[in-house]
Amino acid sequence: MEKNHVIRIKCRDRKGLIAGISGAMFKHGHNILVMKEFVETETETFFARLEISGDLNADLIYFELAALLPEGAEINIIPRQKKNIVILVTKEHHCLSDLLIRYYFNELHANVQAVIGNYNSLQPFTQKFHIPFHLVSHEHITREQFERNILDILEQYKPDYLVLAKFMRILSPEFVTRYNERIINIHHSFLPAFIGANPYKKAYERGVKLIGATAHIVNNDLDEGPIITQQIIPVKHDDDLRDMIEAGHEVEKAVLAEALKMVLEDRIFVSGNKTIIFS
Amino acid sequence: MEKNHVIRIKCRDRKGLIAGISGAMFKHGHNILVMKEFVETETETFFARLEISGDLNADLIYFELAALLPEGAEINIIPRQKKNIVILVTKEHHCLSDLLIRYYFNELHANVQAVIGNYNSLQPFTQKFHIPFHLVSHEHITREQFERNILDILEQYKPDYLVLAKFMRILSPEFVTRYNERIINIHHSFLPAFIGANPYKKAYERGVKLIGATAHIVNNDLDEGPIITQQIIPVKHDDDLRDMIEAGHEVEKAVLAEALKMVLEDRIFVSGNKTIIFS
Amino acid sequence: MEKNHVIRIKCRDRKGLIAGISGAMFKHGHNILVMKEFVETETETFFARLEISGDLNADLIYFELAALLPEGAEINIIPRQKKNIVILVTKEHHCLSDLLIRYYFNELHANVQAVIGNYNSLQPFTQKFHIPFHLVSHEHITREQFERNILDILEQYKPDYLVLAKFMRILSPEFVTRYNERIINIHHSFLPAFIGANPYKKAYERGVKLIGATAHIVNNDLDEGPIITQQIIPVKHDDDLRDMIEAGHEVEKAVLAEALKMVLEDRIFVSGNKTIIFS
Amino acid sequence: MEKNHVIRIKCRDRKGLIAGISGAMFKHGHNILVMKEFVETETETFFARLEISGDLNADLIYFELAALLPEGAEINIIPRQKKNIVILVTKEHHCLSDLLIRYYFNELHANVQAVIGNYNSLQPFTQKFHIPFHLVSHEHITREQFERNILDILEQYKPDYLVLAKFMRILSPEFVTRYNERIINIHHSFLPAFIGANPYKKAYERGVKLIGATAHIVNNDLDEGPIITQQIIPVKHDDDLRDMIEAGHEVEKAVLAEALKMVLEDRIFVSGNKTIIFS
Repeated sequence: MEKNHVIRIKCRDRKGLIAGISGAMFKHGHNILVMKEFVETETETFFARLEISGDLNADLIYFELAALLPEGAEINIIPRQKKNIVILVTKEHHCLSDLLIRYYFNELHANVQAVIGNYNSLQPFTQKFHIPFHLVSHEHITREQFERNILDILEQYKPDYLVLAKFMRILSPEFVTRYNERIINIHHSFLPAFIGANPYKKAYERGVKLIGATAHIVNNDLDEGPIITQQIIPVKHDDDLRDMIEAGHEVEKAVLAEALKMVLEDRIFVSGNKTIIFS
Repeated sequence: MEKNHVIRIKCRDRKGLIAGISGAMFKHGHNILVMKEFVETETETFFARLEISGDLNADLIYFELAALLPEGAEINIIPRQKKNIVILVTKEHHCLSDLLIRYYFNELHANVQAVIGNYNSLQPFTQKFHIPFHLVSHEHITREQFERNILDILEQYKPDYLVLAKFMRILSPEFVTRYNERIINIHHSFLPAFIGANPYKKAYERGVKLIGATAHIVNNDLDEGPIITQQIIPVKHDDDLRDMIEAGHEVEKAVLAEALKMVLEDRIFVSGNKTIIFS
Repeated sequence: MEKNHVIRIKCRDRKGLIAGISGAMFKHGHNILVMKEFVETETETFFARLEISGDLNADLIYFELAALLPEGAEINIIPRQKKNIVILVTKEHHCLSDLLIRYYFNELHANVQAVIGNYNSLQPFTQKFHIPFHLVSHEHITREQFERNILDILEQYKPDYLVLAKFMRILSPEFVTRYNERIINIHHSFLPAFIGANPYKKAYERGVKLIGATAHIVNNDLDEGPIITQQIIPVKHDDDLRDMIEAGHEVEKAVLAEALKMVLEDRIFVSGNKTIIFS
Repeated sequence: MEKNHVIRIKCRDRKGLIAGISGAMFKHGHNILVMKEFVETETETFFARLEISGDLNADLIYFELAALLPEGAEINIIPRQKKNIVILVTKEHHCLSDLLIRYYFNELHANVQAVIGNYNSLQPFTQKFHIPFHLVSHEHITREQFERNILDILEQYKPDYLVLAKFMRILSPEFVTRYNERIINIHHSFLPAFIGANPYKKAYERGVKLIGATAHIVNNDLDEGPIITQQIIPVKHDDDLRDMIEAGHEVEKAVLAEALKMVLEDRIFVSGNKTIIFS
């Protein structure tokens, strides 16, 4: 039975890295299925992602690579298996339902451990798929307490990633730091246009001819994290706000699903406020 | 020999407008080739565009329509014929060359009367097509004087429209007012993202995954006029700034050509900061 | 409480039709929300679709229109209400699940009366939404008997439309005739490329760089009915057959949903083997 | 002054190829700017393309690689410099003019040595850019003689590639063999739909909702060579044949330009009837 691995490397760039890395794989008899690399010239940083077929001795490979790569290299050797995710929602269903359908039919490459909502609107739907739904209301409590309540629930799941599937509360820097580069959000606009609340309303009022959606990794600045995927859809003068929201939902769910696929397959590197994606 | 007309109507909305307008056409024996209308509910404004085959008595139709439409109705009866345009450029050729090729091969639905540039870089190319090129430098003079020099040249052409084909100077409100709703600009970003200078650089630094271009009607606020057309193109982490600019040029010329076609066929109405486009 | 109507007209073209129709609406005090029309010049046929706000006397309007339109005009006056549909499936879930999610969250503009499958793979999923699932196996019986079994079930529902959501059996002309212009199919290729079975395999072997899907109205020629919607998605040399199928599923469900929306809103006219769509 | 090289390798797949190739580069002190590789599993073929910065000893590197790669490996070491091309046309200008504009403004990465037309319609335009135009009429002579006349002209240019920019004559297998994998054609449909003549007419009559264009490498089967690029554009019921042709021209020139860029940068491998493109 085959079990593949992904090897991810981020380090200072220098000559011979590809030869060194691929030589190490060859030396240990590993077959490289795919190897992709990128040098970010501004930062002189080298990024690589390899898929290796079959089993491997992770410790051995780690030390072998650490020895040949520049000091400070980040090396991750990851068996290809499903990640655990928890999905956060508010009231809108379209991203959640898209993900749960993929999960139910075994197309998501992730285990959905639980759904957390600050309203219970999506509880009945979630439970159709025998996934725990946790209501954590934000009402009558501080954001700090609200987040602590969420963290308490997350504690029992220890998910690899949090997916904000139209979760309409802003998370504090403290919360985000806990899940550094592990929170994926879908923003309902073509960022950086229409940052903040009510982007469709703003887009409608501005009279744009395209609307879009952006999936990004959450950092401490609202709607400012590294962008993973963006898509757009055309609109016309006779589309009213409701038409635009409806059309936007189609894009939002497509964008989030595409971004999440990249995340769950360990294809994304973050460099400053940008992503490198080995698709 | 057939000569068609476009009739454009903008007025307060009320019941029976379509019946009234189409009845008037029928009464005078005119065949409506296409009739499109739109009611902007926020402003209770009715917009219509008709294409009428064959000749017509414009005065007669005007008065007939004026009598049946609400007070203050704007009625334009326009023979379908080529408009006159003057193109303003700086140094980049891609939008100009796209338009001149279309013009040369009789595909533009416009007469290009002249090209005005604040550098002479594009003079040799323009003259290949026997189109007058006027150099109006902005250097060592005030904007006021610069614009007066341009207006002097425009005076001899009296164009229907000015096309800013990557003209990189900002026009004053006084200038814009002279050509109210008759200046078409291409902005090298997906507005309202990256307003102002160096949008590709900003897009590159922000790490967006789509870049775009926007053709719009110029009003007094920089990059804020009514949008006609927008298109986007995907970019990846390994596209550097130069790749993005190159890809952007393809979109810019396509967007400007598409927008200009709509303008030259009298398909666009402006309402506040939005466009209604009967394509 | 407002209840709108759609009026659909198909007749020989002649001068004055718009004036006549809109005049009749005005005479009876009806407000036209949207009116769209098209003249197919090859066949000299006039098509129109009107949305009328509020209640109306359908008989009265019908006779009024019949009196003024050319002989043989087809006139349909349809209250805007949800249609009844039955969905036919085989084993693939993606189109069915997309439609059932929209239905469950009240976004489909249709009542899903039942799902019929020639395998029972999708029964558990369907029943989550409390929709009857009928297994009608095609095995060990003739196509005639198979179709009679389906028709027996349809008899109890009398649906307005049948939706073939990846139903992989070919229907006989006799069956199709029973639901003339009322069967919507999704074909997993960009028709007319790759007609027939295994289009993704054919596309993969041909080395195309785009794959697509086509929603169409079923007629008696396999994959040859009037096309409603088509979309495509790019593929690359490193997409294997499985990647192409997976990408194709995304397009298939999007195309079917878009086409069905047009159908359920009475926006489609069929003319020969083409569709006119007033979107 | 930097002069980069592209190294292209096609050989039987086996373990250690990446390590071997990159090791050889490192050994000789060459910096790999980009390395992309692909294994076609059906044929067990390995393809790689490297960009190497700076000068290199091509003979040395060739023998080094030949020694370590499987027997029969195809190795090409190509200095990055402009290719020579000859463009063949009939009457339509849009692809030619697009290419000549890019050439004139130094954006084509190729020297346009000459244009050959079987009509002289495009002679005046071509000569504006001081490019030789050769009229080779196909009338009153056999195809054999026609092709011999073309080959006579090509003999003086010895171009790297022939670009069929809407050249509407079918070339014989003998001719094609002379320029094996070096003739690029733009076909005005989304292949394999609408093979052969008059694709827009066929598309119009079929009532498709998307039309497209395909750039491909010419082989001996009409419209059947390996596909490089495809793009599509949506059409609607009110687009007549002329609208479709006009819209199609926009796609055709974009597709040809994109494909040619890939060709001129040595990014394309042919494998059977498919292309591998390292973009």
